[in-house]
Amino acid sequence: MVNNKRKVSTGIQSLDKILAGGLNRGDTVLVAGQPGAGKTTLGLQFLYSGATKYGENGVYVTFVESVDKLKRDASKFGWDFEELLKEKKVSFLDLMQTTGEKGVEANFAVIMNEVELVGAKRIVIDSLSAMTTYIKTKAEARTFMLVMNRLLENAGCTSLLLLEVPWGKSDIGSGFEEFVADGLIVLESAIDGFRVKRMLFVPKMRGVNHDLSCYDFFISSDGIDVSPIPTSRKR
Amino acid sequence: MVNNKRKVSTGIQSLDKILAGGLNRGDTVLVAGQPGAGKTTLGLQFLYSGATKYGENGVYVTFVESVDKLKRDASKFGWDFEELLKEKKVSFLDLMQTTGEKGVEANFAVIMNEVELVGAKRIVIDSLSAMTTYIKTKAEARTFMLVMNRLLENAGCTSLLLLEVPWGKSDIGSGFEEFVADGLIVLESAIDGFRVKRMLFVPKMRGVNHDLSCYDFFISSDGIDVSPIPTSRKR
Amino acid sequence: MVNNKRKVSTGIQSLDKILAGGLNRGDTVLVAGQPGAGKTTLGLQFLYSGATKYGENGVYVTFVESVDKLKRDASKFGWDFEELLKEKKVSFLDLMQTTGEKGVEANFAVIMNEVELVGAKRIVIDSLSAMTTYIKTKAEARTFMLVMNRLLENAGCTSLLLLEVPWGKSDIGSGFEEFVADGLIVLESAIDGFRVKRMLFVPKMRGVNHDLSCYDFFISSDGIDVSPIPTSRKR
Amino acid sequence: MVNNKRKVSTGIQSLDKILAGGLNRGDTVLVAGQPGAGKTTLGLQFLYSGATKYGENGVYVTFVESVDKLKRDASKFGWDFEELLKEKKVSFLDLMQTTGEKGVEANFAVIMNEVELVGAKRIVIDSLSAMTTYIKTKAEARTFMLVMNRLLENAGCTSLLLLEVPWGKSDIGSGFEEFVADGLIVLESAIDGFRVKRMLFVPKMRGVNHDLSCYDFFISSDGIDVSPIPTSRKR
Amino acid sequence: MVNNKRKVSTGIQSLDKILAGGLNRGDTVLVAGQPGAGKTTLGLQFLYSGATKYGENGVYVTFVESVDKLKRDASKFGWDFEELLKEKKVSFLDLMQTTGEKGVEANFAVIMNEVELVGAKRIVIDSLSAMTTYIKTKAEARTFMLVMNRLLENAGCTSLLLLEVPWGKSDIGSGFEEFVADGLIVLESAIDGFRVKRMLFVPKMRGVNHDLSCYDFFISSDGIDVSPIPTSRKR
Amino acid sequence: MVNNKRKVSTGIQSLDKILAGGLNRGDTVLVAGQPGAGKTTLGLQFLYSGATKYGENGVYVTFVESVDKLKRDASKFGWDFEELLKEKKVSFLDLMQTTGEKGVEANFAVIMNEVELVGAKRIVIDSLSAMTTYIKTKAEARTFMLVMNRLLENAGCTSLLLLEVPWGKSDIGSGFEEFVADGLIVLESAIDGFRVKRMLFVPKMRGVNHDLSCYDFFISSDGIDVSPIPTSRKR
Repeated sequence: MVNNKRKVSTGIQSLDKILAGGLNRGDTVLVAGQPGAGKTTLGLQFLYSGATKYGENGVYVTFVESVDKLKRDASKFGWDFEELLKEKKVSFLDLMQTTGEKGVEANFAVIMNEVELVGAKRIVIDSLSAMTTYIKTKAEARTFMLVMNRLLENAGCTSLLLLEVPWGKSDIGSGFEEFVADGLIVLESAIDGFRVKRMLFVPKMRGVNHDLSCYDFFISSDGIDVSPIPTSRKR
Repeated sequence: MVNNKRKVSTGIQSLDKILAGGLNRGDTVLVAGQPGAGKTTLGLQFLYSGATKYGENGVYVTFVESVDKLKRDASKFGWDFEELLKEKKVSFLDLMQTTGEKGVEANFAVIMNEVELVGAKRIVIDSLSAMTTYIKTKAEARTFMLVMNRLLENAGCTSLLLLEVPWGKSDIGSGFEEFVADGLIVLESAIDGFRVKRMLFVPKMRGVNHDLSCYDFFISSDGIDVSPIPTSRKR
Repeated sequence: MVNNKRKVSTGIQSLDKILAGGLNRGDTVLVAGQPGAGKTTLGLQFLYSGATKYGENGVYVTFVESVDKLKRDASKFGWDFEELLKEKKVSFLDLMQTTGEKGVEANFAVIMNEVELVGAKRIVIDSLSAMTTYIKTKAEARTFMLVMNRLLENAGCTSLLLLEVPWGKSDIGSGFEEFVADGLIVLESAIDGFRVKRMLFVPKMRGVNHDLSCYDFFISSDGIDVSPIPTSRKR
Repeated sequence: MVNNKRKVSTGIQSLDKILAGGLNRGDTVLVAGQPGAGKTTLGLQFLYSGATKYGENGVYVTFVESVDKLKRDASKFGWDFEELLKEKKVSFLDLMQTTGEKGVEANFAVIMNEVELVGAKRIVIDSLSAMTTYIKTKAEARTFMLVMNRLLENAGCTSLLLLEVPWGKSDIGSGFEEFVADGLIVLESAIDGFRVKRMLFVPKMRGVNHDLSCYDFFISSDGIDVSPIPTSRKR
Repeated sequence: MVNNKRKVSTGIQSLDKILAGGLNRGDTVLVAGQPGAGKTTLGLQFLYSGATKYGENGVYVTFVESVDKLKRDASKFGWDFEELLKEKKVSFLDLMQTTGEKGVEANFAVIMNEVELVGAKRIVIDSLSAMTTYIKTKAEARTFMLVMNRLLENAGCTSLLLLEVPWGKSDIGSGFEEFVADGLIVLESAIDGFRVKRMLFVPKMRGVNHDLSCYDFFISSDGIDVSPIPTSRKR
Repeated sequence: MVNNKRKVSTGIQSLDKILAGGLNRGDTVLVAGQPGAGKTTLGLQFLYSGATKYGENGVYVTFVESVDKLKRDASKFGWDFEELLKEKKVSFLDLMQTTGEKGVEANFAVIMNEVELVGAKRIVIDSLSAMTTYIKTKAEARTFMLVMNRLLENAGCTSLLLLEVPWGKSDIGSGFEEFVADGLIVLESAIDGFRVKRMLFVPKMRGVNHDLSCYDFFISSDGIDVSPIPTSRKR
């Protein structure tokens, strides 16, 4: 269990090991995956473990799923967010209603305000794809993401940005997010023989001598669990 | 046979089992498939079983096929919708004639009105692709779908949104629908050796520890029947 | 030989068998195929058998080939359309000269007028691709096709819409035609080893428990003949 | 050697055999091939044999190669076009200099004028791709090609339209030419093991019970020669 | 060693053999290749051998690499261009600075002027891709290339137009250059097992009964050397 | 260890060997790679070795990662940039904040000013992709890159331009950068069986008889280390 100043636990022991101890404090890390890959579960697990084991408050920003459904999803794993919400250790920020082209900066201001109120050290944005859907050009989206990452780092937040990979695609975002972010965790859910197989690998983590292997992972009743033994991934 | 408050049966026992008991009440679930995959049959079966076995009224919204043909299709399976229509347990809403760019919101208002009139707890939209064909940008379509899902959930409806996958493609919609929806059921009809083979799998179902295997399914004289044993799917 | 009220023979016995007795009366069915696949031959055979065996008049609408060449093609199979034309049992409608963006609705009006004059119960449109070439957006083309199908059904016509699949492609139309139509018959002419091999399969036929196998077919001196035994189709 | 009224020899005996006796008189046939495939040679051979063996005058329209180079190419095969030019049995029409968007109809008028002057029964357009390069939409190009084919047929011309297939592609034109034309002859020049292999096949020829096999062909000192025995074509 | 009036040596004996004696005088030939394929080396070798062995002056036009670097590259092979420059047998024309949309015709005028000044019989344009980068439509680029080729032929020049094939692509230019040019020489540099393998083949050379095989080639201290024995090229 | 006037060491002995002694002085070389491929590490190693072993000052320009994170990354390898910064041997130029379409030329002016101040002989731009993101057309980006390369060469700088290859792609930039640059070093990080495998190869290096093999490389505690023995790369 890591808890030093430079490393932030993901809440998943075997993933921390792949990352040579956890995420770098202040980093902004993409979590990319297809529908049902487990991105939301990873995000909830990251916040829940932060608030309950490491004394780090968190904010979950949703542009995709209602807060009620998020709580319902979490309760399946025995994660009691109601209690944490009462203790103001975690906040759910529902920005699904906010729409329109000018909303991106406004939304981000609301997020930073919530981060300050909660004293958050961890943030999950679900999803970067949804948040930036109204930005018209790749250049503007890149600039927005650069500014956002810097402000989150300045606020002392370690951030997970969930990124939607459409079913049947392997492209990640618009081709720049992976370069602007400090790290990239890929959750794959490819059909392999009789079933959908879940795999995790980390192609990039700045300043970390991370493990380059692929790992099977499972969503059990305790949340995400990554196999400690590498797996084979055919193309 | 499920009938508790949190779970809604699909009307297909083996599919309910894959979904760990059925759909979550209030969820909006995509049913994606190529032409002839059985999407319409699944939708009719969902409504018919709801009205006859679970006391849940339903609305079938069609932008694609005439109501006469839908009834003809259903009668092949011995599903007597005429009776249900008389008893006002089910309603067919024909929106094929409605066209034009501004019709999307207007259409949705007509749908919600019908849901209220019928006291529907189940709704099928055939198809989301046809309903949103006049929406120009992905961002606007995403916003529309978010709002629709929320209103359907608030009305207590469990919803199936049929999604058209063109022959020879594996992409699902425009790449965001699968993330906005609570779940995704894929009906595949790939040519395999001598014949078109039908397969079903569930890549995503929020808050459900669903089965990740692929299953053969058949369209018999009783409707859709999913094999209880997983099948192999080559790519 | 089928001739009941609900079923319409295609004129090809083995194809009728695949379709569990023939086409549904009033349906609009796509016939998709690459150049030389036999779409025109299938269309001519459908009309000729209708007029000579089943007492059903027909209209052949051409946007592609001159009527002289159509007659020449048909005479190779011993189908004497001159006689049928004199008896006003069949009509060839040449719309090749009609062009321009506003022509689509005008063309359709001409077609419906001809259907009424001939008292046609069968119609072939050669091709849907050519007919809709000036429609600018997919949404408008979808709306046009929905309206056309409904009017043809109301007129009591069973319709074949020929659809052009460019050489080397497997996409069918713009990705919506196959959903709007009641059925889809695919004529494949893939190169396999030493020769172009002809195959037929039916991915979709609404309300029909159709055969899902692939079949070799041949263009003999009597027209199209489908093998009664399924064939293997590699990808 | 065919010379009846309904059939037109291509000038290549084995190709005539594949076409069940030759081209249909009045047909417009695409000859598609990659650079170096032999399209120009086939075109020159068609005109030369027509003028010397069958008493049919011809016009070669070039948008691509200068007339001097065409004559140089032909002389390699011993085809003396200088003599035929003097006797006004053949004409070379150089339209390379004509450019601009409005030139297509003007160019076609020049071509039809030349056809009349020469009394041509055969015409080669090298290439359709170059001729229509300034037409902006597919719909307009389709309309132009329909009109051109009809006028050429009315003038009693049997026509070869050469179509450029870029290296590394297998698409043919813009996806409609193959449907508007009466026939399609494909010249393939794929790299196979140690060398570029030349193959010919005929996917489409209206009203002809043509051979569906693939054939090797060679460019010898006498011009194009097609092997009488089918060959295997792997994909 | 060829030096007759109709044939122009490439400066590479084994390539001349593939071309049945060399290039046709006055032809415009594309040399297509990925980065590092050896296009520039082939161009320099063509000019150097022309000026030193065959008494033919030449112009090297560069839009890509500085003249200093070109001389540095050439000196590695022992080709002393300084001497040839002094004797005015060869000229390097640096057009890298010339930019903007209207520059294409202006640039070409500068080139033709230099050709006249030097009395050049050989010209290399490095690269056609760079020269035409500001031309907006394919139709205009085609027209420009047609005019350029004709003027170069009229000036008695045999021309190599270098064409950039991006890494990982096999398309050649915009799909028309290969048809407008008289010939096409492809330099391939594909990764094969442990190393990048260099191969050369000639898909097209008008009026030449050229060799259709693939050949390994090497860049040795004497320049490009093509293996006399064909090689296998897997796809 | 190279240190002559014409060759510049990359700081990695085995890479210098592949390059026949190192980079050419004054060259602009692309380093292309996917996220996590090691581009930044290679850039830092190039500058650190230059300043500490070869007496060549350097500038690191970042549009992507904050200077703090760059220093943190470097310190993992024991590269003490703080000391070099104090001694004014190296400068980090943070241009992340500069945005907008007109910034490209302005940014480059700032860079050239810094090069002069530091007396830099080595420069790393991280990344070319980010720097040129606001340039709208390929033609303008090509012109900008040509001018930049020339000015960097005139200033006596040997330059590494880092180029972002999105995950799952193999295209390099927009298809022209590889031709404008003097060289191209590709860092591949493909998934192969159980793990991400790192490989390096050099498809292009002007005027260098470079090694064409593929090599495994590793990121150890001393930085990038390239295997001296070639490796196999399957496609």
